[in-house]
Amino acid sequence: MPDTRYDVLGIGNAIVDIIARCDDAFIKVHGLDKGHMHLVEAERSAMIYRDVGPAVETSGGSAANTVAGVGSLGGRGAYFGKVADDTFGKIFRHDITSLGIDFGSRPVAPGEPPTATSVILVTPDGERTMNTNLGACVLLDEADIDPTKVAAARITYMEGYLFDRPAAKRAFRLAAKHAHAAGRQVSLTLSDGFCVDRHRAEFLDMIKGSVDIVFANTAEINSLYQTTDFGEACRRMAADAPLAAVTRGAAGSLIIRGEERIEIAAEPIERVVDATGAGDLYAAGFLFGHARGAPLAISGRLASIAAAEAISHIGPRPAQNLAGLIASRGIRVPDRLNP
Amino acid sequence: MPDTRYDVLGIGNAIVDIIARCDDAFIKVHGLDKGHMHLVEAERSAMIYRDVGPAVETSGGSAANTVAGVGSLGGRGAYFGKVADDTFGKIFRHDITSLGIDFGSRPVAPGEPPTATSVILVTPDGERTMNTNLGACVLLDEADIDPTKVAAARITYMEGYLFDRPAAKRAFRLAAKHAHAAGRQVSLTLSDGFCVDRHRAEFLDMIKGSVDIVFANTAEINSLYQTTDFGEACRRMAADAPLAAVTRGAAGSLIIRGEERIEIAAEPIERVVDATGAGDLYAAGFLFGHARGAPLAISGRLASIAAAEAISHIGPRPAQNLAGLIASRGIRVPDRLNP
Repeated sequence: MPDTRYDVLGIGNAIVDIIARCDDAFIKVHGLDKGHMHLVEAERSAMIYRDVGPAVETSGGSAANTVAGVGSLGGRGAYFGKVADDTFGKIFRHDITSLGIDFGSRPVAPGEPPTATSVILVTPDGERTMNTNLGACVLLDEADIDPTKVAAARITYMEGYLFDRPAAKRAFRLAAKHAHAAGRQVSLTLSDGFCVDRHRAEFLDMIKGSVDIVFANTAEINSLYQTTDFGEACRRMAADAPLAAVTRGAAGSLIIRGEERIEIAAEPIERVVDATGAGDLYAAGFLFGHARGAPLAISGRLASIAAAEAISHIGPRPAQNLAGLIASRGIRVPDRLNP
Repeated sequence: MPDTRYDVLGIGNAIVDIIARCDDAFIKVHGLDKGHMHLVEAERSAMIYRDVGPAVETSGGSAANTVAGVGSLGGRGAYFGKVADDTFGKIFRHDITSLGIDFGSRPVAPGEPPTATSVILVTPDGERTMNTNLGACVLLDEADIDPTKVAAARITYMEGYLFDRPAAKRAFRLAAKHAHAAGRQVSLTLSDGFCVDRHRAEFLDMIKGSVDIVFANTAEINSLYQTTDFGEACRRMAADAPLAAVTRGAAGSLIIRGEERIEIAAEPIERVVDATGAGDLYAAGFLFGHARGAPLAISGRLASIAAAEAISHIGPRPAQNLAGLIASRGIRVPDRLNP
């Protein structure tokens, strides 16, 4: 096995979030499904942005948020994703590299689409509805998978959103192949219930064949197995994947490994300000702990703490240093990146 | 007097804020004065940005934050300021117009400097240190002063930062002339202690001759009158300006009108997350109340509530609807924009 240089390598859609508050009527009037990610063309994105109130811009992207969280936790990460060489691309690059994350992906050429954006609408209940224009992301393909970096990461983590593009799906499979060839682990988040609906068979095929750690929420796992029986969904997940973590909002999360079930409490918070990034930061905490060899219950605790931080403010990435936050809770994570 | 179309017209530097957290050591290493605004060239701005951690981008600019606050309070506002037709210029325009603010200033021509940015460093105590690259702002001049809009605004409000540029200062004086010719009021914020240092004589000259309402904090008023005796500074302010409001951080604020002194308590908050925008939103609350004919004590209360909202989260502009916030406190503001 090559030297371990990264706890987690993330592969995903590199996106800048444009976050605005709105009421439930706005979601309805614009024909959106609350709590979901919608893929939209540039024109529709511009229309929603035009109609909505003041916004805040911040780096996003599901797997990017996760590796940013790993960086904030004191871990080492790398990221593959496509941005353009424009204002948002520079913001994305700054934010991820300033956390020490290795982001070597070349920007797309001039004349290609701009950096991806997601107009994220946050309703008073803290729920977020995303409108993603993929822009430069659509150019991520197998050429962006650097096998040396994959081999140097304990865990390669990919977002299910990549399944929406055939070239990205091929990149995904290639990365999984390189990771396993190097004796590493592969992790996947199901990303979104609608995304699972669009690609159910391929998700199942990928999970059974190539994924060591699955992340999902209840809607996603139920959609994957087309059941409303959560216990049944968990049993099927246990049969399909060696390890899974299923988030259940305020009810906490469940870690599934064979017959084993570990219930993790949600970290109490006063109010959900903005749910954007909750799942991404849950994955960050869990993967960081797991990469360092922490027991599953500790990895789950780290996940809950990181997720709680993300939903207590606007924006998907940590607003405070997560390493300091977990230290203040008296949690110690092994510092054993090498060998 | 022409029809009143606006409660407040703001004139200032149109800026997009790039807000990042840092520790006190970062401020020192970069040779910055904590709590102050520094004018920096593009190169120095880029250097500070390169060195600092992840950031969030959001519309800013002192007077722009104030009129945005007036809009959020349910008031009607207009704004004069220069942006470029670039990503940040579009963000600035969206954010201010989406609050119903009339922003008619033409963007600068292609090839001119980009939209201004301020890299704002927020230390753990919530204090902010600003690094402003003026970019397109430097092109604001007398041609941008639309006399019809000035005449239609109850109060024309200008930021002291404009004194740093001769063309803007001339625009400033022209706007004051138009406002008074239409029987309107002129308001000025001193903006920053260093800015007062740079232009003390001109500030005094302007205040004595053309300003009806002055905003300042203790550092600024003390710098203006070169005294450390706050009572003395207030007496001199009372002699120079018909009405002034001096903010004193957690100690609240003092409204000064001739012999009259009205003490306004600060609105209690749990923790100062980011002081950016505190003074701007104080002015928003006060000017909105004053434009609607509210008693000074009520205008002061509105000011305190708006300022408290601004400092309880990252970013200078309201994260919630201020009209709803003041209604929830049982405060009613006269709805008498016209005649």
